[in-house]
Amino acid sequence: MMRRDRLVLAATLTALFSADFYFILLPKLRSRGQIWGHSCSCGPTNLTLPRHGGLASPRLSNWTSLELLLDADTPEPADGGSKLERLFAHSLYNIQTPVLGPEERLLQVEQLIEYYRKKVSRWERHMKLYSEVVAVSNITVTEHEVTYDPDASWLKFHLGISRYALYSRDDPAILQLLKEMQSMTVVSADYTQDEKALKGACDCTQVVKPSGHHLKLALKMRNFAKAMFKPMRQQRDNETPEDFFYFVDFQRHNAEIAAFHLDRILDFRRVPPVSGRLLNVTGEVLGVTHNEDLRAVFFTSPANNMCFFAKCLYMCKTEYAVCGSPDLLEGSLSAYLPGLSIAPRISIPNPWIRSYTFTGREEWEVNPFYCDTVKQLYPYNSGNRLLNIIDMSIFDFLTGNMDRHHYEIFTKFGDEGFLLHLDNARGFGKHSQDEMSILAPLSQCCIIKRSTLLRLQLLARREFRLSDVMRESLEGDPLRPVLTELHLLALDRRLQKVLRVVQRCVRRLGEDEVITRDFVKSTERPQTATDMKKSR
Amino acid sequence: MMRRDRLVLAATLTALFSADFYFILLPKLRSRGQIWGHSCSCGPTNLTLPRHGGLASPRLSNWTSLELLLDADTPEPADGGSKLERLFAHSLYNIQTPVLGPEERLLQVEQLIEYYRKKVSRWERHMKLYSEVVAVSNITVTEHEVTYDPDASWLKFHLGISRYALYSRDDPAILQLLKEMQSMTVVSADYTQDEKALKGACDCTQVVKPSGHHLKLALKMRNFAKAMFKPMRQQRDNETPEDFFYFVDFQRHNAEIAAFHLDRILDFRRVPPVSGRLLNVTGEVLGVTHNEDLRAVFFTSPANNMCFFAKCLYMCKTEYAVCGSPDLLEGSLSAYLPGLSIAPRISIPNPWIRSYTFTGREEWEVNPFYCDTVKQLYPYNSGNRLLNIIDMSIFDFLTGNMDRHHYEIFTKFGDEGFLLHLDNARGFGKHSQDEMSILAPLSQCCIIKRSTLLRLQLLARREFRLSDVMRESLEGDPLRPVLTELHLLALDRRLQKVLRVVQRCVRRLGEDEVITRDFVKSTERPQTATDMKKSR
Repeated sequence: MMRRDRLVLAATLTALFSADFYFILLPKLRSRGQIWGHSCSCGPTNLTLPRHGGLASPRLSNWTSLELLLDADTPEPADGGSKLERLFAHSLYNIQTPVLGPEERLLQVEQLIEYYRKKVSRWERHMKLYSEVVAVSNITVTEHEVTYDPDASWLKFHLGISRYALYSRDDPAILQLLKEMQSMTVVSADYTQDEKALKGACDCTQVVKPSGHHLKLALKMRNFAKAMFKPMRQQRDNETPEDFFYFVDFQRHNAEIAAFHLDRILDFRRVPPVSGRLLNVTGEVLGVTHNEDLRAVFFTSPANNMCFFAKCLYMCKTEYAVCGSPDLLEGSLSAYLPGLSIAPRISIPNPWIRSYTFTGREEWEVNPFYCDTVKQLYPYNSGNRLLNIIDMSIFDFLTGNMDRHHYEIFTKFGDEGFLLHLDNARGFGKHSQDEMSILAPLSQCCIIKRSTLLRLQLLARREFRLSDVMRESLEGDPLRPVLTELHLLALDRRLQKVLRVVQRCVRRLGEDEVITRDFVKSTERPQTATDMKKSR
Repeated sequence: MMRRDRLVLAATLTALFSADFYFILLPKLRSRGQIWGHSCSCGPTNLTLPRHGGLASPRLSNWTSLELLLDADTPEPADGGSKLERLFAHSLYNIQTPVLGPEERLLQVEQLIEYYRKKVSRWERHMKLYSEVVAVSNITVTEHEVTYDPDASWLKFHLGISRYALYSRDDPAILQLLKEMQSMTVVSADYTQDEKALKGACDCTQVVKPSGHHLKLALKMRNFAKAMFKPMRQQRDNETPEDFFYFVDFQRHNAEIAAFHLDRILDFRRVPPVSGRLLNVTGEVLGVTHNEDLRAVFFTSPANNMCFFAKCLYMCKTEYAVCGSPDLLEGSLSAYLPGLSIAPRISIPNPWIRSYTFTGREEWEVNPFYCDTVKQLYPYNSGNRLLNIIDMSIFDFLTGNMDRHHYEIFTKFGDEGFLLHLDNARGFGKHSQDEMSILAPLSQCCIIKRSTLLRLQLLARREFRLSDVMRESLEGDPLRPVLTELHLLALDRRLQKVLRVVQRCVRRLGEDEVITRDFVKSTERPQTATDMKKSR
């Protein structure tokens, strides 16, 4: 076990160092000495990555042609082919993760199949009882047969979750799941668990709105896939009013979709699959819900559209309603993670949490040395946790999401588990503003994973350009265009700003201090801040 | 007393009959026989109205030229002069009301002056005490001296209220008050009485929102004028979403302003003066309020604008906030009516009230003979009350206001008092929709005051055109343009629809049944529906 870990570490470090050399050192040398001039970018550059023994690193013999491909001065390829495909074919996106041992997978097949079987039989018992209740009342509920399908794509998604990411780059189940979510038959609709926990009450002593506000729904599909539906609340070209605090901003279904694609393009793979979907709120929500409370919030609008409003008592008004046209409602559908009973997660406050009040200021907002404190504290004093926080802050900065108050991790993977990037619907609110404070973890700590930086640099290049690959990726969603051009272009501008922050850090502290190698294994004893510095 | 009333009645009937002859009968004859052809519209048509003994009616010798002036085929006057001035100079707008006896005025001078004096000295006592409180706390409140001014325009407005209207057509105090409201020094700001009555609680068992929702404020001016401020919530060109129920629609400050002008142009004069105003929410609200609760809802927005939100607990969120830019906030300022202690009013449910629920239907919506029931019921079974309701429904139809659940009258004038057209902020929500159900009182009862009809016909003519006189009238407001062109043009279209409804009634029931003479005096005993029909 330890041996394989070391092999992974060694291989990855080699790959990263090689990439680093060609991405960072060579361009620097070139810009100083103009040694390389304008190199020819022609010629085939078929990069094939050797795969052996569960490890992979770009063969060094390939680096020269790779460098040519990545030359900043290279014009856009004339063939107009898929930039996204070229991106995913790039060696940086093909550093293979090792074959996973059982303890590195979130779930075992037998365990999940057993869980699934139990769910199906519990559902069938419930439906039998429910049918009897319905028979004596005047409720009309459409009853769909559920199917037990051990090949369902959602099962494959759950089984593919590892200690490294929510899915592997080449997992065909993900694309299949995205496609299926667009048309899966809904057999049941209900409030989400957190809304049920509120029981219609609202804690209005806090300025923060309860999540019940957002009218999100938990949908169960015929094959037992579960997904969260967030309805469209805002037109694509509406910007968040400048006077809105981040915590009262709308949740945007398109932000939820775009965040999944961005996370995948950044190669984080920490957002569960999200697809756009047109839902028939009459047939696919009202007609299949067994929840009386949910049924009670449906009404027909003056324009004869079917609408429903939030359950929370203080929402007793149609301003918070969403309406179909007349039944069809646009929204995002996010695949559920495995249930907490088989894959427990913990929710941890973000060290760079914001003050959810009108006037409050958190320490990080007033203390420029805040990161020094964080670095001393468990679990940020060792391993990758702080670097993961910084990855997340870059992700959030690119989308403009200021609402990252907590993050979640799977308990199974302990402190070295990746951070889940859940709940991204408050991104993409303002294309015209770059909220630099979201980058505080990066700008205050001045560290970044080398692998993250390399991918950001790749995406800043004309041949891949973040806005272009995002546009292409989002084209696959049924609700295209998911983002307006202005939001897409903002991604490029923000990416430049991230790189400039890194540049400033490097200028101040030197590359060795700032650009940190990944896959640092946590040692047995918690490291101190001094240890951590040494380990870089 | 009776004699003067009879004189008024006789004079008015003569005037109305003459107008009727020329507006309705002659055009009809002409259109049938083409007797008149295209008459020459040239030549001066100086209409002077004789005034004698408190009565006035257009001299019959003038009717010929009047007819020429009103010829439907007359082109617009080439001089491009003021249509509004020409309208107000028209004989229909110069039927003089009699000199008012004390019992026909709402207030007596001595009574009001006494009331005013008391208010001033009570305020001075309050300020003395309050200064002492403020001195020991850390509140900063700007203290303005108040002035006692027996010539204040608001006093003149209050003194001018009669049993016929809120103000007389030629009262210079109204224009003066409108002008002064734009810049009067605010000495105190507070919640309105109805919001205080709510005490921050919200009845959410009802779908209807409490008025506390609307962030309206009561402002006291240096000379003790009082006005209600309704802040801007919506851009001029935003239409109410089609799925909104009338009872959750925003209140629009510009609708409040436009409604005053429309009411004046229709010669109803049942809306208290309303002016637009730019208010400095820091200096003119936060800085002068003595209400701790109000002070507590102010905050600075992320864009550094000064904002405040509604007091009602379930509004604990900035979505309901309004913000200055950075301090200046646009809004409507409506002059207060005399206090209830000296001029009591009663609030009466509109017989054509709507169901304030998602699914409810009121009787008038399902029973086409609803008006027959209403006509049997006191107070609609005698006098002008039902005709006044129909006037109000025409006014509301023109603005598109569906929210007329109650109306108020001054108790002093008893059942024959005019209906106050208060609270018009839910008009002008949709320019593209004409909500015919608002006209139900007219279309179901098929009666209309002759004087109202004549003015509507006048305003439908090209020389006066409702949209043109409204545009011109609203030009005088500091927040111009108050209405978008689309809303102005909707007025013309809706006016045509009102006239068509009348036409259909006339075709069905005949003119005598439909077009009812005004100024019907209530008899000593309540009339029955049969009596009422006879009296037409």
